[in-house]
Amino acid sequence: MKYSQLFTKTQRELPAQEDAKNAELLLRGGFIRKELAGVYSYLPLGLRVLRKISQIVREEMDQAGCQEVLMPAIAKKESWEQTGRWETVDVLYKLEMANGKHVALSPTHEEVVTPMAQSFSRSYKDFPYCIYQIQNKFRNEPRAKSGILRGREFLMKDAYSFHTSQEDFDAYYENMKDVYKKVYDRLGLGDITHIVAASGGDFSQYSHEFQTLNEVGEDKVFYDTKQNIYYNQEIAPSQAPALESQEPLPSEDVKGENIIGVQALSEFLGIPEERTTKTLFYEMNEGVMIAAVIRGTYDVNEIKLKEVLGCKNLKLADKALVKKITGSEIGYAGLVNLPDSVRVVIDDSMQGVNNFECGSNKTHYHTKNVNFGRDIPEPDQFYDIKTAQKGDLNPETGEVYQVSNAIEVGNIFPLSKKFSEAFGFKATGEDGKPTPILMGCYGIGISRLMGTLVEVFHDDKGILWPKSVAPFQVYLAAISKNDAVYTEAEKLYKELQDAGIEVLYDDRREKKVGPGQKFSDHELLGIPVRIVMSEKTEEKGIVELVNRETGEAQEIQKSDILKHV
Amino acid sequence: MKYSQLFTKTQRELPAQEDAKNAELLLRGGFIRKELAGVYSYLPLGLRVLRKISQIVREEMDQAGCQEVLMPAIAKKESWEQTGRWETVDVLYKLEMANGKHVALSPTHEEVVTPMAQSFSRSYKDFPYCIYQIQNKFRNEPRAKSGILRGREFLMKDAYSFHTSQEDFDAYYENMKDVYKKVYDRLGLGDITHIVAASGGDFSQYSHEFQTLNEVGEDKVFYDTKQNIYYNQEIAPSQAPALESQEPLPSEDVKGENIIGVQALSEFLGIPEERTTKTLFYEMNEGVMIAAVIRGTYDVNEIKLKEVLGCKNLKLADKALVKKITGSEIGYAGLVNLPDSVRVVIDDSMQGVNNFECGSNKTHYHTKNVNFGRDIPEPDQFYDIKTAQKGDLNPETGEVYQVSNAIEVGNIFPLSKKFSEAFGFKATGEDGKPTPILMGCYGIGISRLMGTLVEVFHDDKGILWPKSVAPFQVYLAAISKNDAVYTEAEKLYKELQDAGIEVLYDDRREKKVGPGQKFSDHELLGIPVRIVMSEKTEEKGIVELVNRETGEAQEIQKSDILKHV
Repeated sequence: MKYSQLFTKTQRELPAQEDAKNAELLLRGGFIRKELAGVYSYLPLGLRVLRKISQIVREEMDQAGCQEVLMPAIAKKESWEQTGRWETVDVLYKLEMANGKHVALSPTHEEVVTPMAQSFSRSYKDFPYCIYQIQNKFRNEPRAKSGILRGREFLMKDAYSFHTSQEDFDAYYENMKDVYKKVYDRLGLGDITHIVAASGGDFSQYSHEFQTLNEVGEDKVFYDTKQNIYYNQEIAPSQAPALESQEPLPSEDVKGENIIGVQALSEFLGIPEERTTKTLFYEMNEGVMIAAVIRGTYDVNEIKLKEVLGCKNLKLADKALVKKITGSEIGYAGLVNLPDSVRVVIDDSMQGVNNFECGSNKTHYHTKNVNFGRDIPEPDQFYDIKTAQKGDLNPETGEVYQVSNAIEVGNIFPLSKKFSEAFGFKATGEDGKPTPILMGCYGIGISRLMGTLVEVFHDDKGILWPKSVAPFQVYLAAISKNDAVYTEAEKLYKELQDAGIEVLYDDRREKKVGPGQKFSDHELLGIPVRIVMSEKTEEKGIVELVNRETGEAQEIQKSDILKHV
Repeated sequence: MKYSQLFTKTQRELPAQEDAKNAELLLRGGFIRKELAGVYSYLPLGLRVLRKISQIVREEMDQAGCQEVLMPAIAKKESWEQTGRWETVDVLYKLEMANGKHVALSPTHEEVVTPMAQSFSRSYKDFPYCIYQIQNKFRNEPRAKSGILRGREFLMKDAYSFHTSQEDFDAYYENMKDVYKKVYDRLGLGDITHIVAASGGDFSQYSHEFQTLNEVGEDKVFYDTKQNIYYNQEIAPSQAPALESQEPLPSEDVKGENIIGVQALSEFLGIPEERTTKTLFYEMNEGVMIAAVIRGTYDVNEIKLKEVLGCKNLKLADKALVKKITGSEIGYAGLVNLPDSVRVVIDDSMQGVNNFECGSNKTHYHTKNVNFGRDIPEPDQFYDIKTAQKGDLNPETGEVYQVSNAIEVGNIFPLSKKFSEAFGFKATGEDGKPTPILMGCYGIGISRLMGTLVEVFHDDKGILWPKSVAPFQVYLAAISKNDAVYTEAEKLYKELQDAGIEVLYDDRREKKVGPGQKFSDHELLGIPVRIVMSEKTEEKGIVELVNRETGEAQEIQKSDILKHV
């Protein structure tokens, strides 16, 4: 493509500051244009990148025997009601049709693909298979952010597999990990992208995420070097660093009106934050009350708490209920004198801790120097109900985790029977009896991957696209005021194209576009190789080859160019 | 691809009758699946066809120097308000976001592409250029119908060109006609797809449609063989066949209580329908009243009437207003004794007609045997304000039109300054002064084209895909109970694939899938060539080659296959 024919232009500065590097560089380079927050157009250069990423994903999915389809964004309300998600998925866009009926604008396609698969598959012989698509998703994000990392409309590869046995599913799921690994390898992200155990929702113990380590990532991953395992913060098993045991001090109720919150309390009482506690009250099934107690510097992790309690639904008790149960306002409720009807779950961050502060269950009062066995009963068992933090240990190995920010660039999820049961999807088994169908789903955010690549591969001059997805392989810059150089450049342009090399030929001859502009445009656009032709190089019968990543320049005989690009 | 691995299956019959052949055959073949009326999934075979159509369109657009982008479906409400279309486009889906704001779900992209182009182009030197995309559109159709011919969500190629002079635009527009012609030629539709003059809306005299002649088409096109011109019915200039002049009869008011409508009236009065009249009352600008009069067998064409009147807005007068003006109920209002304040526009279907019926402007009364010059003034001029009908003549040539149903498979539209003005999009001209930008838009319905191909190319056994878009080139059917034939078929399958030929290999070996099923599946799926391998052919060292279209079968030496497919 000739630069002069490209309708987009680079920008030295943006009119408004962006919150993410990918947004800044992609906007400045004219790869994308913002329609509104989280909604972008892909311009000619950007679309080339997006397509190459899509094609890599497509090739690996095809290679794995998956079958490509294209489902619509519009989906039946009835199907979303059948799975119970019409009301519970808060990012679901709902659309009113001319006839007054409503439909969903799909953020994911279980509700479409499950009845589709069901309509074709009746016998165990039809399984397993996997259906995938590369398609635009819609999410009613309250606050879209980070450029194309988290959008309201975005391109996804989503795949769904169908199985008649757990063994078959398990093997397929493991294989899909390898398929994904190949994708990230081809994108140049293999070394920094890891399989991370994540929550399996209500229906599976784990799901797995593919997380690319990067400062701007919204996720935190916890790595145990001994086990070589990554956990998402949301489920990482964790053990708090131990606190020193102290000489027991007499307990004491201290009036601290409106002193709420760990920091305020620690300052007010003159004790370290580690010796405060948080007590959260939850309602479980049929009015069962739970008090979850944790070291003041931690947060209660509801995923873990649910697992400890073996329940699916849990909600924070409101002020009135806490007062009714404990007799005190919510900020002063704690372990001392709790009624027996409340089930107490204490995090192991409290194990071996003494002289700690705790709500007194009297409004405006905190109890200081509480000790287990003296002031409150020593629990039979401590549990891990905390959200892991930097500095925590893996309880299985005793290793301190390495903690990193990461961008989720894919996830795979054992859906088990959740969706097949909702639609009554069974097949006739080998024994002639109805066999339940097990499903897995497998997602890769294509547009998010494009943003991730920019976050990972850039320097202060611009983007550094990996070869596999660069919009062009070569940026050919003609630098001269004379026709002769452009004639030669045009020849080389054709020659390279004939050899199957994608070239962006910077043929601009306006006065204001000097060599500096051409070089900085090349650097911003991040095309792997720059070839420079000028009167000087023409005289010598060479061209200058510049590596975008290293900045290294080489003089190459014209006849040798094809060997070098 | 191996048939046994395809998750879709053909169906002999559909659970419910479809209103269009394309829906029936595509559903039965497992090319598509209906999510809801006008919303379809494209399954593996269907997606292959859709992609091939897209690719043909893409190649021709690229060849013409157009630049591909991908715009989002979500568009800013503010932009749709700026063009005045937020309220006027009735098929616009409006979406509420989490923050309570509304956005549009684009049925077309002028509101996105115009500000996008504007953000990059400042000088006349940047023009002309053309931006296109192949992208999913949304239309809030009250009643989606005809399978994938008219949908609520569908795949479109839409392109937008930008120019700084009328000459430049005109040349570009003419060139785009040739680009479109190439597309239809490559799809095998060239011979029956014609450029048809259509309405240019409020801002241009004409637009042009590409209409594929076909019985199921929603449009009617009028062809003048002498001029070799096609008109869409909505604007076809027309002259009604002349009526015989009669001996003038005395006029007479006849009481016909509740006799309304042409047919009832003609029966009641004992006159041919051709000698009744319709009078429609309209309100034009600032309360100007119009009486539009036409031969009873015709309909008033508002596009033509607006042009005659030189106005953009016209609305039918309500009952009360008609009564106020004429003194009579709406069905009895007519030409006799009309107040001078009403401007009368009489269609040329009335020219030379005498002894006609006409509303008497007295409730329940019709006047019979009305004659111009005697009962009502002979008008200075008759106009063409009718919607053309079969049997009409082209007034320019006097030729009777050939009338056909047709499917609109593309349209090109001179947008002139409509959208650039709305966004204040101008460029600096050669003279340094601001130059207005002229735009054109160019659409091709990709999914509609797929449906059109099925409507045009099918027989009673199934689809007949043109080679250029067939999901596979070859259907390889192995017919045997013995492994040996399948081993040989597998070999041939690989050989053909290695030669770059797309093969659907029917390797099914279940008892219930006999030769009959395999052959009828092939016929339904419409793959151009069937290769049959059986014990019989193996013995002879040949294969059987069947042409799907002609049914012709040939025996071919195995070694010669590549020459034949």
